[in-house]
Amino acid sequence: MNISKFVMPEIIFGLGSLSQIGDSTLRLGASKVFVVSDEGVINAGWVEKALHYLKGAGLGTEVFYSLTTNPKDFEVEQGVQKYLESGCDAIVAVGGGSPTDVAKAIAILATNGSRLQGYEGINKISHPLPPMVMVPSTAGAGSEVSQFAIIVDTQRKLKMSIISKSLVPDIAIVDPELLITKDAKLAAATGMDALTHGIESYVSLAATPLTDIHALNAIRLISRNLREAVQNRRDMVANTNMAMASLSAGIAFSNAILGATHAMTHQVDGLLDEHHGEANASILPHVMEFNLPACPERFREIAEAMGKVGKQMPLMEGAALAIEAVREIIADIGLDKGLAELGLENQFIPTLSRNALNDACLITNPRNASIEDIEGIFRKAL
Amino acid sequence: MNISKFVMPEIIFGLGSLSQIGDSTLRLGASKVFVVSDEGVINAGWVEKALHYLKGAGLGTEVFYSLTTNPKDFEVEQGVQKYLESGCDAIVAVGGGSPTDVAKAIAILATNGSRLQGYEGINKISHPLPPMVMVPSTAGAGSEVSQFAIIVDTQRKLKMSIISKSLVPDIAIVDPELLITKDAKLAAATGMDALTHGIESYVSLAATPLTDIHALNAIRLISRNLREAVQNRRDMVANTNMAMASLSAGIAFSNAILGATHAMTHQVDGLLDEHHGEANASILPHVMEFNLPACPERFREIAEAMGKVGKQMPLMEGAALAIEAVREIIADIGLDKGLAELGLENQFIPTLSRNALNDACLITNPRNASIEDIEGIFRKAL
Ligand SMILES: [Fe+2]
Ligand SMILES: [Fe+2]
Repeated sequence: MNISKFVMPEIIFGLGSLSQIGDSTLRLGASKVFVVSDEGVINAGWVEKALHYLKGAGLGTEVFYSLTTNPKDFEVEQGVQKYLESGCDAIVAVGGGSPTDVAKAIAILATNGSRLQGYEGINKISHPLPPMVMVPSTAGAGSEVSQFAIIVDTQRKLKMSIISKSLVPDIAIVDPELLITKDAKLAAATGMDALTHGIESYVSLAATPLTDIHALNAIRLISRNLREAVQNRRDMVANTNMAMASLSAGIAFSNAILGATHAMTHQVDGLLDEHHGEANASILPHVMEFNLPACPERFREIAEAMGKVGKQMPLMEGAALAIEAVREIIADIGLDKGLAELGLENQFIPTLSRNALNDACLITNPRNASIEDIEGIFRKAL
Repeated sequence: MNISKFVMPEIIFGLGSLSQIGDSTLRLGASKVFVVSDEGVINAGWVEKALHYLKGAGLGTEVFYSLTTNPKDFEVEQGVQKYLESGCDAIVAVGGGSPTDVAKAIAILATNGSRLQGYEGINKISHPLPPMVMVPSTAGAGSEVSQFAIIVDTQRKLKMSIISKSLVPDIAIVDPELLITKDAKLAAATGMDALTHGIESYVSLAATPLTDIHALNAIRLISRNLREAVQNRRDMVANTNMAMASLSAGIAFSNAILGATHAMTHQVDGLLDEHHGEANASILPHVMEFNLPACPERFREIAEAMGKVGKQMPLMEGAALAIEAVREIIADIGLDKGLAELGLENQFIPTLSRNALNDACLITNPRNASIEDIEGIFRKAL
């Protein structure tokens, strides 16, 4: 028996689709909505717009935005308290991966109680969550469609992966217009996150034909649009294609899970608090080199999707071009930095490697990795 | 504003996945399940298997199978009565497009009341439907994932298209094992239905990047597996690929809608009661010839997906190869028949053409079609 499961939210996509947030949340049975966002998104004006549409649909609202990049367990706990006091019965996120993951984590604790640490891993959530509508403001995290919530455990200084079908929002509203207020650096980092999602889910041991078509779609779109999106933040064709790429990559990794890159960056993010996409850029090419012997056909297909290779080229040669293509994009968008430059010190590598071994994302990596393998990759990426 | 919506059920896919039907239905909150099927599927033993798993999960059951190919309004009305008497609170279909569409139509009337005719067209359903789990036993209809239910209006002698997001089942369980009890003729007809779904949704005016990847996946898989699936009914690779193709085509057309072929075959099916896939085979190539000038790029991409053409070939030449590829498959699986051979008489063409003009599927056809155009295509397909 080889049974795969595939789940995704209802998707509303397109320029101006933020206007659908009122009716969409209303038809899920909401009366008062807890809106999770962050300061940057609020300053850009998107929360005000969302509130306008929510109120226009007759819904009460409460805004929560006390959270940081790589959101922390105690921020979630403050959010839950505020949610319970507010009398809200639905949750909306407007923002990047951080507000979205916090919104999901608040939803877990609000209806299932106890502490977040108890839900780490796969399928630990038993009670249904409140209705959730997610509006991404970056093209990368993919959390608006995924069964993942990633929250920093501040005591252990690492990111917990909480994975459950209950975390798939009811509706994802993807409006590329929200991307124009992102700066180039954030566009680059989030784009690299999306590329890493596409590549890791395509070579994942849990990949299926349904996840493959979404992963390849994401890889293809990113290799053709990320440079333009970074260079010209107002290029709406590039922004729209990156929004679709991030969405496709999110659908793929939500159902195929990820790999060693994420198992490792989850640890780095928990320690350094840099942008998750930058850590991905530092580590991904080295993980690809490590993984290549395990699935050269898949790598060659990635190279093809990135426009690098014809079907005639010998297998290993074509496969290696996938890594070359990834390195070129990373350099072109200015993310070719080692982990040391991001602040990582050599002394932390043994601890990070031990923690990476316990991350749920390592289970689906196509090549089995020992602690020595992980340490070796960390050192190369330094 | 160019906003698209995309929705699909949770999917459980793979050999042996029928075993998941008990737990899947239970977690939707069901206590007693109304199982809709037909005599062929019951005789093949699949309903007995499904009942075993449903009862194993502690669920009560009631089986309904008084329905025919191209299911009729009065059959649905009998089913609703039985459903309401039975005290069931969830609906499961095990079978091809007919039981699945009947299950959906029963769900509509059970909770929304009145007559089916009142729901014809787009988004006419206002009250939520009971939980629905669908298990296809053919690779073609795609109804297990779609927002469509197609039921014959026996007075008007035509098929009504009922289209609503409420009709997307909660869970689709796609177990390719169920395909082995289909005979070659049914495999050919249902496979042609799936190919028609893939092609019509790829050239649809409502196509989006998300529907495109599913449509092309379906077209690619069908062009490589339908012949084998028809020739050797026990080839499990071909059967599994056709199950995936039918699923992908269903996801595509559910969200992109269809075109003139379906607007026309819905009328033929209502009149002649032959297999919907056979009528598609007779009409599709002629509709493609009519549509080609409106979207030659899309046709060339279809030809590429069917392995017919390289990127170097001139546009119109490459585009025409899509039609050639479709004709070849139709001939290879023995469905190269005119509508006259299926029983259509010349005298009915004006009425059928008038009715086709009112079918919801014509709205998304890439080329505007007058009644004369439709009549002309009917005559060529005779
Ligand atoms: Fe990520
Ligand atoms: Fe059809």
